[in-house]
Amino acid sequence: MNRVYNFSAGPSVMPESVLEKVQGEVMNYGDSGMSVMEMSHRSAVYQSIIDGTESSLRDIMGIPDNYKVLFLGGGASTQFAMIPMNLMKKKIDMVHTGVWSKKAMAEAKRFGEVNVVASSEDKGFTYIPELDNNTFSPDADYFHMTTNNTIYGTKFTQIPDTKGVDIVADMSSNILSEVYDVSKFGLIFAGAQKNMGPAGVTVVIIREDLIGKAGDDVPTMMNYKTHAEKGSMFNTPPTFPIYVCGLVFDWIKSLGGVPGIQKINEEKAGMLYDYLDNSKLFSGTVRKQDRSLMNVPFVTGDADIDAQFIKEAGTKSLINIKGHRSVGGMRASIYNAMPVEGVKALVDFMKEFETSR
Amino acid sequence: MNRVYNFSAGPSVMPESVLEKVQGEVMNYGDSGMSVMEMSHRSAVYQSIIDGTESSLRDIMGIPDNYKVLFLGGGASTQFAMIPMNLMKKKIDMVHTGVWSKKAMAEAKRFGEVNVVASSEDKGFTYIPELDNNTFSPDADYFHMTTNNTIYGTKFTQIPDTKGVDIVADMSSNILSEVYDVSKFGLIFAGAQKNMGPAGVTVVIIREDLIGKAGDDVPTMMNYKTHAEKGSMFNTPPTFPIYVCGLVFDWIKSLGGVPGIQKINEEKAGMLYDYLDNSKLFSGTVRKQDRSLMNVPFVTGDADIDAQFIKEAGTKSLINIKGHRSVGGMRASIYNAMPVEGVKALVDFMKEFETSR
Repeated sequence: MNRVYNFSAGPSVMPESVLEKVQGEVMNYGDSGMSVMEMSHRSAVYQSIIDGTESSLRDIMGIPDNYKVLFLGGGASTQFAMIPMNLMKKKIDMVHTGVWSKKAMAEAKRFGEVNVVASSEDKGFTYIPELDNNTFSPDADYFHMTTNNTIYGTKFTQIPDTKGVDIVADMSSNILSEVYDVSKFGLIFAGAQKNMGPAGVTVVIIREDLIGKAGDDVPTMMNYKTHAEKGSMFNTPPTFPIYVCGLVFDWIKSLGGVPGIQKINEEKAGMLYDYLDNSKLFSGTVRKQDRSLMNVPFVTGDADIDAQFIKEAGTKSLINIKGHRSVGGMRASIYNAMPVEGVKALVDFMKEFETSR
Repeated sequence: MNRVYNFSAGPSVMPESVLEKVQGEVMNYGDSGMSVMEMSHRSAVYQSIIDGTESSLRDIMGIPDNYKVLFLGGGASTQFAMIPMNLMKKKIDMVHTGVWSKKAMAEAKRFGEVNVVASSEDKGFTYIPELDNNTFSPDADYFHMTTNNTIYGTKFTQIPDTKGVDIVADMSSNILSEVYDVSKFGLIFAGAQKNMGPAGVTVVIIREDLIGKAGDDVPTMMNYKTHAEKGSMFNTPPTFPIYVCGLVFDWIKSLGGVPGIQKINEEKAGMLYDYLDNSKLFSGTVRKQDRSLMNVPFVTGDADIDAQFIKEAGTKSLINIKGHRSVGGMRASIYNAMPVEGVKALVDFMKEFETSR
């Protein structure tokens, strides 16, 4: 079988040129005589790989010098606990926009009080709630938000003004898809497996003054200080996933950086949303102004037709478009690495399917 | 540069045939139309990969049915905290054989009392201390041991009789190198990056009755129950490293399983130790009966000669044989994937170096 168009919500499509580079280097990286998978993390050659990965990420995200970049194992779900273990003294604010904020909330509640400033649960998380400035607690240790909600296909179009309270942002499903001003955040985290690389590494970008606040009861591996002081090399990091992330960062650079990829993402999402807005069969499930650039859920309103569409799409190499069980219907995840041609092929097939009915 | 003989202590050499298989599949796995790195962990094709990996490991280790196998992120260092968070109520016993037991001890002390039953610190951890049965605490929650000590090149040749207290074993540097009876242990853990695959995944083998003992204050991701109930799929696991581990397990099978590879390991280590015992220039640093099959430290007794040897070895494609800074001299890590030819080449060069002086 040839390569398919893979609309998976994550792990997800990767740039073909990156996979080709991995293929070319996997037996023997450069002059090293070994695979990246075989390299001591303490070797000069691997140090240059992780340094290059960090430097490329700093470059494309414009990360200020007073932020550390950490490459950690354990997945973004581990961050739901690690963040309060490091930053929460008493109380945090949170906006509730779906499954991931719910999970983050559950972990934070082990360590203190969680104040929900706003929620979109009333309408199945199909919109982004208003964040009135007055709802923030001035004494919150931080405010937790999920910039893009993979399951529901919503995203924040603005970063709220929290009046000085640090913002912690879960960017797992839209990091590097559009330009963000890192200095607006205290901490940004994201699992790699959507827009960065293979599963198994989580990027944490943290302002330096937030490091070193954990109590003595926090295990060494759960303390940001441990990893910040050792350049993510306190223990053996996920060396191969980090290397692949570096290749993806360089690929983004080659497309004009994040501004370049954002333009392509807007074009891709625009194509799909335009068609949905004009279709008599398919419709989007999200309030228009809150639509994600990355995850596009849509339905026909008839579960049998949805199932038939998903099945027929599979025969056209349009794979993994079944919606999350909590939303139903279809979802096309069109991350950075999904080529424009993939979205075109999907829209063409949707048209064909609609016309044939 | 051609592929070298890589004596790194970890991450370390991998079987060339496994790397070739990865290379062949990295753009497109089987009929899937995508890389393993791009697969949803919820897809049928990935489920079959992780199921196959687990099943191969159960097969080659003879893991009884009442043990769960977990594939976790975060590295073995995370286990130093996760184990007491799940299994320690009040007190544990531990044998102190080097840096890794020290780190495990430091984490366990956050959660209760640590009783050191024996230590080899007095002689720089160059031997394995006697474990008199009387030294174990009958009321210990478990006994923690490190079966093989990567830095010092020592290993336990016997698993002690703890009179019913569960044994927790850190097998990071010798899992799958020799036959162990899993039923003797309550929990076995090992980072992948020495004998299993790429860094970023840690295998935990845990007897079922030890799962579900964590308190409510333990974060979801640090609770074995979370991962055991979801087949290591509560969150996105390190999908690609797990896949590569599966290929390594199949490679071990093809060599006659663990008994087969143990025989090869004994042959490789024997060659090197025989030479060390007869050399007038080089000598091993470990008490003979406690020598590791995996990590062989040796010295000339003269730091300048050591440095010259390491440098010249590098020109012969014998790489990463510098000893750990705490031992000095040289260390040849000869894990499962180090070919017999690699050890032969090293011994030949040692002879040549010795003769030329």
